[in-house]
Amino acid sequence: MAERKYALVIVDMQNDFVLPGSPACVAGAYGTVPSIKRLLDFFRLNKSPVFHVVREYRPDGSDIEMNRLEGFLRKGRYLVPGTKGCEIVEPLRPVEGEYRLVKNRYSCFMNTELEFMLRRIGVTHLVVCGTQYPNCIRATIFDAVCHGYHVINITDATSAQTPEIAQANIVDIRNIGVDCISLDEFIHAFNKN
Amino acid sequence: MAERKYALVIVDMQNDFVLPGSPACVAGAYGTVPSIKRLLDFFRLNKSPVFHVVREYRPDGSDIEMNRLEGFLRKGRYLVPGTKGCEIVEPLRPVEGEYRLVKNRYSCFMNTELEFMLRRIGVTHLVVCGTQYPNCIRATIFDAVCHGYHVINITDATSAQTPEIAQANIVDIRNIGVDCISLDEFIHAFNKN
Repeated sequence: MAERKYALVIVDMQNDFVLPGSPACVAGAYGTVPSIKRLLDFFRLNKSPVFHVVREYRPDGSDIEMNRLEGFLRKGRYLVPGTKGCEIVEPLRPVEGEYRLVKNRYSCFMNTELEFMLRRIGVTHLVVCGTQYPNCIRATIFDAVCHGYHVINITDATSAQTPEIAQANIVDIRNIGVDCISLDEFIHAFNKN
Repeated sequence: MAERKYALVIVDMQNDFVLPGSPACVAGAYGTVPSIKRLLDFFRLNKSPVFHVVREYRPDGSDIEMNRLEGFLRKGRYLVPGTKGCEIVEPLRPVEGEYRLVKNRYSCFMNTELEFMLRRIGVTHLVVCGTQYPNCIRATIFDAVCHGYHVINITDATSAQTPEIAQANIVDIRNIGVDCISLDEFIHAFNKN
């Protein structure tokens, strides 16, 4: 069997998305922090590469999606570099040797250096978690499949506004051949390989 | 005639590329700083959008081009965020309302948010200057043409290692329909429109 090389991609676990009451809060995100932390610790222990992919928006809204622009300008900015809200939630902060990448749209692959970096280190298996299922998680997973990666989504480390939305997305994601499994299942399977 | 909307793209005018003796010095770059400054002031006066597109490399070389990796690791890093060398040369520093974008490869369009932002503000004409002709300037201009922009290259605000290399590139760039003109010619033509 060809050698496997795993990388972890943690999507958008920033204060403005995760903390209850935050301006772009995803209801399910806060509850996944402990699972993501366990998954992150597992990758750190195995010295496997970790990519923290985050959003940033310029304060004038010049780079935000069209569908978000009006709310961003009217209701108050979020995910602006240099603000507390833009930072990764404290328990998941990157440590030295991990990568923080900025994305401008839903997919972690769209107009970012992610694919260049994954290819350089020979990643074959991409483990995806974070928030939120219908947008950035799903777009990232679909692109990863298209780029030829084996993709594993950790369901209890990934969130949406409601469990129903999460579940509906998991159905579709499984249908393109992605393993959507729990953290315990992943660790069990990983240790068997 | 359809309305024209100009934007200025200044490429890679960072200390590590521009200052004499810098680690990735382009011999012709320092001499263009005064012309680029005049061009920048012209855009500021006209309240036309300005994009400062720059390079950044992670210190472990994980995101640098393959052909530059060995030298980067062996001879000492350059263009690393947070270092003086990575900063835009002092006379050309962005002011409020101007955009600083990071690119990871030669073209300012490759895996960056530039195209999203140009489209949002309805740019039709892209004025390109900076360094250096055979790599980032040329790749950017070719992509801009492919994306459908009218492109103007300001020859005395653009540089290469030698005048011969610059001239050879100008020939090729003109041959795809790009105006390669001096700063004075540009300002004259602009004021006539």
